[in-house]
Amino acid sequence: MKPKQQREKFRSNQYTGTTSGMCDNYLQANMIILPKEYAFEFLLFCLRNPRSCPIVDVLEEGVTQPRIADADIRTDLPKYRIYRKGKLEKEVVDITDEWRDDFVTFLIGCSFTFEKSLIGEGIGLLHQEQNRVVPMFKTTIPCEKAGRFEGNMVVSMRALKEDEIEKAVQITEKFETSHGGPVHIGHPEEIGIADIQKPDYGESVSFDENERTPVFWACGVTPQNVGLNVKPSIMIAHAPGHMLITDQLEEQ
Amino acid sequence: MKPKQQREKFRSNQYTGTTSGMCDNYLQANMIILPKEYAFEFLLFCLRNPRSCPIVDVLEEGVTQPRIADADIRTDLPKYRIYRKGKLEKEVVDITDEWRDDFVTFLIGCSFTFEKSLIGEGIGLLHQEQNRVVPMFKTTIPCEKAGRFEGNMVVSMRALKEDEIEKAVQITEKFETSHGGPVHIGHPEEIGIADIQKPDYGESVSFDENERTPVFWACGVTPQNVGLNVKPSIMIAHAPGHMLITDQLEEQ
Repeated sequence: MKPKQQREKFRSNQYTGTTSGMCDNYLQANMIILPKEYAFEFLLFCLRNPRSCPIVDVLEEGVTQPRIADADIRTDLPKYRIYRKGKLEKEVVDITDEWRDDFVTFLIGCSFTFEKSLIGEGIGLLHQEQNRVVPMFKTTIPCEKAGRFEGNMVVSMRALKEDEIEKAVQITEKFETSHGGPVHIGHPEEIGIADIQKPDYGESVSFDENERTPVFWACGVTPQNVGLNVKPSIMIAHAPGHMLITDQLEEQ
Repeated sequence: MKPKQQREKFRSNQYTGTTSGMCDNYLQANMIILPKEYAFEFLLFCLRNPRSCPIVDVLEEGVTQPRIADADIRTDLPKYRIYRKGKLEKEVVDITDEWRDDFVTFLIGCSFTFEKSLIGEGIGLLHQEQNRVVPMFKTTIPCEKAGRFEGNMVVSMRALKEDEIEKAVQITEKFETSHGGPVHIGHPEEIGIADIQKPDYGESVSFDENERTPVFWACGVTPQNVGLNVKPSIMIAHAPGHMLITDQLEEQ
């Protein structure tokens, strides 16, 4: 299915699940919406933290159509999260009623973009096989501060076989605007993850720890974690794992 | 002379001229100061126009010390320009009296950074030989709009001998955060320059048009040109050619 058709299914709420594995070769993006008063500091935060927050598009205040997708960001993602003063208020499938003319939208690269290339090299992805939202974890890896925005990195985890890891590193390093190579391999406790079976976002994935090693990539959910500290009056984001599928091919 | 010592001479106003040719191998930067209300749109303008506005540092509101120089941006450039509502009000050698806590400062790469490498390869730079501020011109090359910020690119010009041009292209292409390779070679009228002897910024440089070809690089004075359209309540910039010399080596 082409991105436009896929987004129609989200717009009509026929599908409200994760976008992992959808629309191969098209760039997927994390989304963060903030009132303009926060926009400068947040954009600077992204520039200073390109590994977790690689900017792929910015929509000026009041703009609802990205430059990289013939889409309406108020309706064309499968699921959204609304945060007020740093607290998750609710998950919704449409944010039209919440929209304000002073909202600025940031689109940030997503590791789903490189999953097709991993699978193409024979690397199996358990969250897809088990129909789960990829597990994501808060870490103790600090981001670089910008204005009021400060906090720690969120990472996504894929458990790989020993002989797949080097290949996965080589493949993902090339995807600079989709988080690049892993930020950590093998020792979750070293980056502040206490229990690999209890993700902070997404869903738990079963794997045999004797056969597979957890590999961690920087994740575009980082701003949602940082937002908990900044407590913006309102912040709207995609639900973790439920991305904007853009019309931009990953090669571009 | 090291950047710190050189900046002391600017701070004490012992020298108020161009910084071209100073502190070889250290990155030089254009500076733009705007009230915070313009900061998001201007930062986005820079991101969308990386050739003319490559960001090398951003100082959050009220901050006067860059991350890439042990300097005070209010005193440590040789000369400044103060614009009000898009009009040049005056040139000054110190902006301490104008400073406000809501000022955000942007540092943008400068082509002076690659001049040492050109000279090192035997390419003579006439503006240095003739003790002039490098000539800069408004062009008809449009920048990509961001919010209220829109307008045309400004370029710097160096007249080179035919057999130097390819080498100059190769050398400068590597300086990605200092404007990279030329944006135009040889036909000033094609980019809207009517008279190569009448620059819009800097000073005229004499050369024999039968022996040398004008080569144009994107220039960090572009925001000053764009600012004329946006008419911000106040905008402070370096005087063209009178840059911030940073403590960062160009290799970094």
